[in-house]
Amino acid sequence: MTSLIDFDRLEAEVRSALARDDMDALRALLAAAYPPDVADIIDRLDDDDQVRVFRLLELEQAAEVLDETSVDATRELISELSTDEAAEILEELDSDDAAAILTEDVPERQQALLDAMDPEDAADVRALLRYPPQSAGRLMNDTFVAVRPGQTAAQALDELRAIVHDAAVIAYLYVLEGGGRLGGTLSLRKLLVAPPTQTVGELMRPRPLTVAPETDQEEVARIVARYDLAAVPVVHSDGRMLGVVTADDVIDILVEEGTEDVLRFGGVERGAADETYFTVPILQSVRRRIPWLLLLFVGGSITANVLGFFEGELQKLVALTFYVPLLIGTGGNTGAQTVSTLIRALALGEVRLRDIWRVLWRELAAGMALGVMLGGVALGKVLADGQVAALAATVALSVVAICTWANIIGALVPMAARRFNVDPALVSAPMITTLVDASGLAIYLLIAGALLRL
Amino acid sequence: MTSLIDFDRLEAEVRSALARDDMDALRALLAAAYPPDVADIIDRLDDDDQVRVFRLLELEQAAEVLDETSVDATRELISELSTDEAAEILEELDSDDAAAILTEDVPERQQALLDAMDPEDAADVRALLRYPPQSAGRLMNDTFVAVRPGQTAAQALDELRAIVHDAAVIAYLYVLEGGGRLGGTLSLRKLLVAPPTQTVGELMRPRPLTVAPETDQEEVARIVARYDLAAVPVVHSDGRMLGVVTADDVIDILVEEGTEDVLRFGGVERGAADETYFTVPILQSVRRRIPWLLLLFVGGSITANVLGFFEGELQKLVALTFYVPLLIGTGGNTGAQTVSTLIRALALGEVRLRDIWRVLWRELAAGMALGVMLGGVALGKVLADGQVAALAATVALSVVAICTWANIIGALVPMAARRFNVDPALVSAPMITTLVDASGLAIYLLIAGALLRL
Repeated sequence: MTSLIDFDRLEAEVRSALARDDMDALRALLAAAYPPDVADIIDRLDDDDQVRVFRLLELEQAAEVLDETSVDATRELISELSTDEAAEILEELDSDDAAAILTEDVPERQQALLDAMDPEDAADVRALLRYPPQSAGRLMNDTFVAVRPGQTAAQALDELRAIVHDAAVIAYLYVLEGGGRLGGTLSLRKLLVAPPTQTVGELMRPRPLTVAPETDQEEVARIVARYDLAAVPVVHSDGRMLGVVTADDVIDILVEEGTEDVLRFGGVERGAADETYFTVPILQSVRRRIPWLLLLFVGGSITANVLGFFEGELQKLVALTFYVPLLIGTGGNTGAQTVSTLIRALALGEVRLRDIWRVLWRELAAGMALGVMLGGVALGKVLADGQVAALAATVALSVVAICTWANIIGALVPMAARRFNVDPALVSAPMITTLVDASGLAIYLLIAGALLRL
Repeated sequence: MTSLIDFDRLEAEVRSALARDDMDALRALLAAAYPPDVADIIDRLDDDDQVRVFRLLELEQAAEVLDETSVDATRELISELSTDEAAEILEELDSDDAAAILTEDVPERQQALLDAMDPEDAADVRALLRYPPQSAGRLMNDTFVAVRPGQTAAQALDELRAIVHDAAVIAYLYVLEGGGRLGGTLSLRKLLVAPPTQTVGELMRPRPLTVAPETDQEEVARIVARYDLAAVPVVHSDGRMLGVVTADDVIDILVEEGTEDVLRFGGVERGAADETYFTVPILQSVRRRIPWLLLLFVGGSITANVLGFFEGELQKLVALTFYVPLLIGTGGNTGAQTVSTLIRALALGEVRLRDIWRVLWRELAAGMALGVMLGGVALGKVLADGQVAALAATVALSVVAICTWANIIGALVPMAARRFNVDPALVSAPMITTLVDASGLAIYLLIAGALLRL
């Protein structure tokens, strides 16, 4: 197992060889290492050493490493290579990986590099670039094992052997009929035990699951995950098979999408796939964040009106104000916990729409329990601040009411989103906080009015 | 492609057949459908119809469907089956899937069902249950293709053919030496083109990547994703190979872990793997949420002291209070956006520790830009409320300062977490909101003191 310790040792050995200028030792270390590990080490080196290490790699390993380095390192490495050298490495990569580097890492050199590449490889990459970013068309690999329905199992195995080294997937062979139309799939498991003379047409599974080249990568991942596929064929609307998206690619998508949900929950909508933190111009990131902040600001400004409405009470007892941020903060925190719990439960199918009453009952009970505990602490805090008992009681009672209320809102909003076919993952923590703020304030000041006879 | 439309049509046809009591039509519909689709339809049916549909499935399909139904439906279906019927279905499943159902869905019948199962299958399941939840040991499948170093390629292919139907993975064959010790892996791609008389020992890749049975599933997923593996062998500390975790399982883990990060960002730490939304007792969910809420409450109570400190100013101009929730809310929202952006960038390796100054510069600039725009809106809002110009200027200037400040805090905290080897995904929206609240208030009241000469 490549534990962290192994990786650290490898990095230390690489650095030591660099310091000693021992290129032979370095070359031996690198040749024995896995490309993702070499990529990570390059990411951690200074620019000069990055290039020194990279130049020691064999062509095939260099390509695999370049596919894994961070955007900054990839840019740096490509900028240090001549256009011809870089083109040669890109030719070595799968077209989808080359397309990703050309659009995400070095967009400004995309044309020059494509022109320098072998025309056939460049054509493959250009074909992928015609599809929208984050689509199946961008991710697909066009090297798959194609067989014809009339071939025998033995012939199909020969076809497989002929391109086994380059095929993106070998778990399935794809049965193409006239005009390259996908007629069915033949699993390698079935092929391996089939009588050699049986025909592919008899062995294949007709009407396989497919995606269109325009299908969004998230949908592709959903299909592969749902049906436990090793790969899914990408089929043009005219029935022609264009390529395959493999489980590897789906794993990469899932790693990326998982972090995207956190982004959404924080109230940020991510832009195009070819953006990374540093490649988005600051002004563009501001432009993307401002509409949402503005909406929340306008929504939040109701709190000013609520407080203005209770101006008389606040004038009479300024100490009332002291607990406003604490109360609405607690409401927001409680609500954020509930929303995130429900986003997960809805995503995993643990909670469905028809469960609404059970959910509300649970969150009502949990909110009251949380409120009673925090209310007890609040009581002590206000008394310790030297305030009158009636104010302490007001704050404590408000904590109970606000926690219960926030818990119910935090459950209702994601369920309502699902009901109206909006992705519950779009319900963000800031949205809930803002929703709970004004109502929480009103609850507090109404309780204060009643208890303190202001 | 199984689009939503296909699924809806299938569901409508199933419901119509149920209404007509046409069991033959129903059986034909189900036999042609994919198990995850059947599972989803069962999840949507009433309890009685769930059982009626399930009883029509062939044993193998019934097992695959039961593996995919929601916890509630699985419990319901198993409760309607006799112990022997349920045991027969569980025997049909892979041991890891049977173990998951027995611990997550029907823990109270685990012993009875295991006792009713075929002793050999039950022993396999019990072996998995010895490992901790969410570990490689729980996920692994013990049916893999084992070969010996002295065998020829042709013999290895025969071994593969003999268990190809049951093997969890065929992309790799595992080369076992004396005592079942894993000596290397042989990729099927290599085997397919190897000369029939070459030995496995010559063809294998020695020292493969492995995991221990105790390895956490998140780490297993990380390794499979990083090295693009189709499966990873699980190896005991004495070198014996116990099973394999496949890419399918990793895809399921990633789907689950992705939603887990949202949970953390909402300030909830998830419990054991065998819990789902409804299976956690309410009091236990309260017990899990309260420490964090309590900590935030205590932290947040500083805001009361900050306001108390400025009591004189607030007394003189009560309208100052009106904008407190709006200001700290805006700070919290801005900070939550920044944190979620950085959690993602750090997780994907787009930002590293040494980038700290570039990050701070970006977030400083972005925060000021956001602040200036929102400050303009704030100015209009306060004037529209009929307040004096000096108060409007105070609020507007505070928005600028608080947005900038929140943006910097929102960038610093996840980077600091990474620095001290804490997972940045543990930095939650509530944590940032609470951090920004008290400091934002102090900024506001200091600006008010200066501008309004209170």
